[in-house]
Amino acid sequence: MKALYFDKVTTYLEDYNKPVPGPKESLIKIILSAVCNTDKEIRKGYKPDFHGVLGHEFVGVVEESNNRDLIGKRVVGEINEGCGECIYCKTGRKTHCMNRKVIGIADKDGCFAEYMTIDTDLLHIIPDEIPSEVAVFTEPLAAALEIMEQVHIKPSRNVAVIGDGRLAYMIAQAVSLTGTDLTVIGRHKEKLINFKKFAKVATETNETFEVVIDASGSPSGIVTAGRLVRKKGTIVLKSTYAGKTDIDMSYFVVNEITIKGSRCGPFEPALQLLKRGLITLPAIELYELKDYEQAFESKAFKAGFKF
Amino acid sequence: MKALYFDKVTTYLEDYNKPVPGPKESLIKIILSAVCNTDKEIRKGYKPDFHGVLGHEFVGVVEESNNRDLIGKRVVGEINEGCGECIYCKTGRKTHCMNRKVIGIADKDGCFAEYMTIDTDLLHIIPDEIPSEVAVFTEPLAAALEIMEQVHIKPSRNVAVIGDGRLAYMIAQAVSLTGTDLTVIGRHKEKLINFKKFAKVATETNETFEVVIDASGSPSGIVTAGRLVRKKGTIVLKSTYAGKTDIDMSYFVVNEITIKGSRCGPFEPALQLLKRGLITLPAIELYELKDYEQAFESKAFKAGFKF
Repeated sequence: MKALYFDKVTTYLEDYNKPVPGPKESLIKIILSAVCNTDKEIRKGYKPDFHGVLGHEFVGVVEESNNRDLIGKRVVGEINEGCGECIYCKTGRKTHCMNRKVIGIADKDGCFAEYMTIDTDLLHIIPDEIPSEVAVFTEPLAAALEIMEQVHIKPSRNVAVIGDGRLAYMIAQAVSLTGTDLTVIGRHKEKLINFKKFAKVATETNETFEVVIDASGSPSGIVTAGRLVRKKGTIVLKSTYAGKTDIDMSYFVVNEITIKGSRCGPFEPALQLLKRGLITLPAIELYELKDYEQAFESKAFKAGFKF
Repeated sequence: MKALYFDKVTTYLEDYNKPVPGPKESLIKIILSAVCNTDKEIRKGYKPDFHGVLGHEFVGVVEESNNRDLIGKRVVGEINEGCGECIYCKTGRKTHCMNRKVIGIADKDGCFAEYMTIDTDLLHIIPDEIPSEVAVFTEPLAAALEIMEQVHIKPSRNVAVIGDGRLAYMIAQAVSLTGTDLTVIGRHKEKLINFKKFAKVATETNETFEVVIDASGSPSGIVTAGRLVRKKGTIVLKSTYAGKTDIDMSYFVVNEITIKGSRCGPFEPALQLLKRGLITLPAIELYELKDYEQAFESKAFKAGFKF
């Protein structure tokens, strides 16, 4: 089958072995899959130990499964497969499993291929109302909803999102559904225009906020967040980047600020919001797998592959 | 009256004017007051704008007050006087008031003097069961209890305290009352012995913890805390220090760790615990006010002044 294989370099293969599902797994025929920034980071060396098929955002159809009810169904899938034995799996934190496999990221082939196998428990059926081109946003939308899973966003308090990229766009839309007074702070006026449907926008502000979400992807994000957040307020860190930041931690002690790291989130609420059309998204730009360099270099809101 | 006055340098005065209470204030005759590390930091230049009488931990008797019920009563007092008008005062965060006066720290004379005035609303009557030498620990114990005010410490999960000094001693005792599996991690074996009554102790550990409280007073504390805390766990920062720390914030994002700054806390629960004898403390070492240099240099668990 066709697959995009990574092992220090990326190779397009037409003869990669079609995978065989394990006893608790399903075989997925991929309909389409999407490029995420993490894929680009892996190609730059973010996960030097990983070798295998890239990709973790997908929509597919179940061809084989230990759960017969799923066969023929259109699905999306969570990306972290826990061991079920470690302290994190046993205390409801399987996405932090110490021995986890992560689709297309760690010890498990990903979805930039015609077929993929996946732990059946990670699958979610896509409601018929959601086109595949929209359902492929389930994983990043779930990651945005993780913020509401971790922090109580009160409708009567205000919130700021730092950043005007893809991640900020998903987060700001999800947060805006709480009804809170939301401001998006970014550097690019031409990008900020797109946020105006659901948020106030600014390139700078003297206002302070109860909750500040850093989706800037920049080490300066937490410094800006510290300046914008109210005393006893909360900063949510949503973006990762290489390297360290020089931080005056005493400032956070004296002002009793909470800082929360935030990562993968719940799929079912994301599917519910997409089903109801409450999240609007630009069209995904789709490529043939062999044209992968174009997909990785695309400036579109979202690029991906059709199979 | 006798007073210890600070204005870049510390001066012992015998003729400082006895203060006159404002309409919402009480006049307190100080019984004894205690030296806190913040007082030492102020003398080193931590609050360059402050000039006035030092000291903010005290036990006294109300001599005059707008609240007649308080007159003659033995009291302790909170240290932050809010303006009542700013966003923090109006949302239940008066200890973070933007215009606050802080006894012996900002815009308000402190308790290293025979008399002091204080906003009557900040006073708490000391139950008769608590000797004054114990009641003077109310403010630091309240600061320890602020942790339980901010973080849900579950009895079935484990907790680590980093540090073996005074602050760690108060915090560890307060946390131990939750029944949680508590480990104190310090550098000084001779100090750690004192913690054995209510905690496990270690100079190093490979264990991981749901909640890690940094009371080390050192910039390395957060780095150690990051190593000890479980994924999705919480770090409480309780100590302040000058300068910045070089931190890999992506580590906290990927592992979804919460970092909480923590400062002043609630007085009534502290008084309840002291009344019931649930917190045991070494005796305070008391000096005459004129011998203030000895008090500041004392190596005792707590030093202070008797009047």
